[in-house]
Amino acid sequence: MSERLCVFAEGKFATEDAKTGHGVIRYAPREIVAVVDSTAAGRRADEVVPYCARPVPIVATLAEAAALGATRLLIGVAPAGGKLTPAWRVALDEAMALGMDIEAGLHTVLTDDPALVATAARHGRRLIDLRLGPSDLDLPLGPYSRASATRVVHSVGSDCAIGKMTATLELDRAARARGLASVFVATGQTGIAITGWGIAVDHVISDYIAGAAERLVQEGATHGDLLFVEGQGSLYHPAYSGVTLGLLHGSAPDVLVLSHLAGATAIDGYETVAIPPLAEVVAWYETACRPVRPAPVAAIALNTRRLDEDDARRVIAAAEDACGLPADDPVRFGSDRLLDAILAALP
Amino acid sequence: MSERLCVFAEGKFATEDAKTGHGVIRYAPREIVAVVDSTAAGRRADEVVPYCARPVPIVATLAEAAALGATRLLIGVAPAGGKLTPAWRVALDEAMALGMDIEAGLHTVLTDDPALVATAARHGRRLIDLRLGPSDLDLPLGPYSRASATRVVHSVGSDCAIGKMTATLELDRAARARGLASVFVATGQTGIAITGWGIAVDHVISDYIAGAAERLVQEGATHGDLLFVEGQGSLYHPAYSGVTLGLLHGSAPDVLVLSHLAGATAIDGYETVAIPPLAEVVAWYETACRPVRPAPVAAIALNTRRLDEDDARRVIAAAEDACGLPADDPVRFGSDRLLDAILAALP
Repeated sequence: MSERLCVFAEGKFATEDAKTGHGVIRYAPREIVAVVDSTAAGRRADEVVPYCARPVPIVATLAEAAALGATRLLIGVAPAGGKLTPAWRVALDEAMALGMDIEAGLHTVLTDDPALVATAARHGRRLIDLRLGPSDLDLPLGPYSRASATRVVHSVGSDCAIGKMTATLELDRAARARGLASVFVATGQTGIAITGWGIAVDHVISDYIAGAAERLVQEGATHGDLLFVEGQGSLYHPAYSGVTLGLLHGSAPDVLVLSHLAGATAIDGYETVAIPPLAEVVAWYETACRPVRPAPVAAIALNTRRLDEDDARRVIAAAEDACGLPADDPVRFGSDRLLDAILAALP
Repeated sequence: MSERLCVFAEGKFATEDAKTGHGVIRYAPREIVAVVDSTAAGRRADEVVPYCARPVPIVATLAEAAALGATRLLIGVAPAGGKLTPAWRVALDEAMALGMDIEAGLHTVLTDDPALVATAARHGRRLIDLRLGPSDLDLPLGPYSRASATRVVHSVGSDCAIGKMTATLELDRAARARGLASVFVATGQTGIAITGWGIAVDHVISDYIAGAAERLVQEGATHGDLLFVEGQGSLYHPAYSGVTLGLLHGSAPDVLVLSHLAGATAIDGYETVAIPPLAEVVAWYETACRPVRPAPVAAIALNTRRLDEDDARRVIAAAEDACGLPADDPVRFGSDRLLDAILAALP
């Protein structure tokens, strides 16, 4: 991709709502010339969010981003529910007037929006909907339909937005560093913005979630034989559990890795729903796989960003004790121990 | 609804693929003048499929259906994957030329098909897509958001197409016969064709399954305070499990009733996937509810259509022993015992 991105995250870049922007800045092999957020202007992305690990300048206006050479605006904020925020329309219109294409991973389909389509036509710009999947999806063939050489590792989680994609990308990177034919398989808009392919399984017709997941595995198998399939949601998430289970059964993994945000006790946004003890979460994911295609949880990827280093090491040791599995924070301490456990558990 | 239906099930009426047609004939308070299936022509619907319980004549051609007064063709066959079967196009065109509207519950959206839209316009006919849901769906508010007086009973199953909708309709009918303010809540195309309202949750964007289910409960609560929410799929169905779990968490039931086809040992169409012992299925559904909103399985609805009466009574007794719950076949032996158990389990 030769375009030069600006990541639009007005008012939100420092928050977890901007996780799409953070993920793209950290992982995408794409040129990124600016972040737009007037509330953090003058600083760098990695100063405000160390996870970003890339010194992208933050600017206050789209005009400044254009002056830095931006040719495409990526909406870097993922609102709950995925609708286009009405206040963003003015910004999108301005960006197109400044010569930028618009790339977004919302449920609101930009190319279905007559006003945006008209503005894009007027300025000769493109609208790119990352979440729009193939139109020919169907039911899966079944959990044993893939080539026997293809190994599938699937990330599952105790909640949304806690680091499943990050753990998946770090494990894939570590596997490739060892010379393995490893592939990151994107199942959500941020992953697609990073890799340039994938299907946002949360946007497909719900009867086809598993079929979409199976197709992703088939496509991944053309790129390598060890697939790390990004997970979505959580098995007991009041809004997203359907996506989680459909993706789990459709990708039919050989091995699972469980992501958890250390210290989290309830589902974000649904405080009546407590996160069960981690060992129960492990057991439940294994139970959910068993009738379709059995898969063990091989390791726990902990996100310890809220803790200092001593506390991080303490919660990692506690998770290992509680679950009887290797645990680590792949961003903070590296992925090697997790990857060792995963490779050892593969058939 | 004042239209006069013909149920189109060419070559399939005697098979379970025609379950949409069978359900509508048995339950819908709609005028039905004919079934179209040349392979069963000359007989009556209830002779070929006793479940139908209604003496609708079966004819060989659409012209005969039109002569009997049909003003609307309902596609009575539910193909796996829900696509429009190409061979049906000729029949749909002919039906419209004969003055019939077309009503269908496919994933293929008739009103998005330029050829069908053109034919409908030429003949002044309507295309009705039962599976097309509201366009303003969103995430659910959460499992405790409904009015406290509303009680929700949800049908779950050991597989697809085994009688969940039928059990739900029979329980609702029995509850209304007792004077309760009971409501059948349709979550699939056949249920919608029967009741005239509902959302086909398997056709919505997968992020909104739970939101759609919650909205159905809210709408049902405007019609009564005891809701029987039709289930879909099964928790370990390789294609449909995502729909099952999203609907389960979004409808947030107080009580579950488990449907099972007596004698079935594997998921239909996915023979590598064995149906677990019934007591495990019960335990797993209860586990799946627990973190979101706990709900017990109160009763087992067995479909004994493959058995003679002695064997039916034997498998019912065996299911009661295995699960420690009341079991019965609501079509064969009535719903009262199941309903008693459900009402006793409500909070």
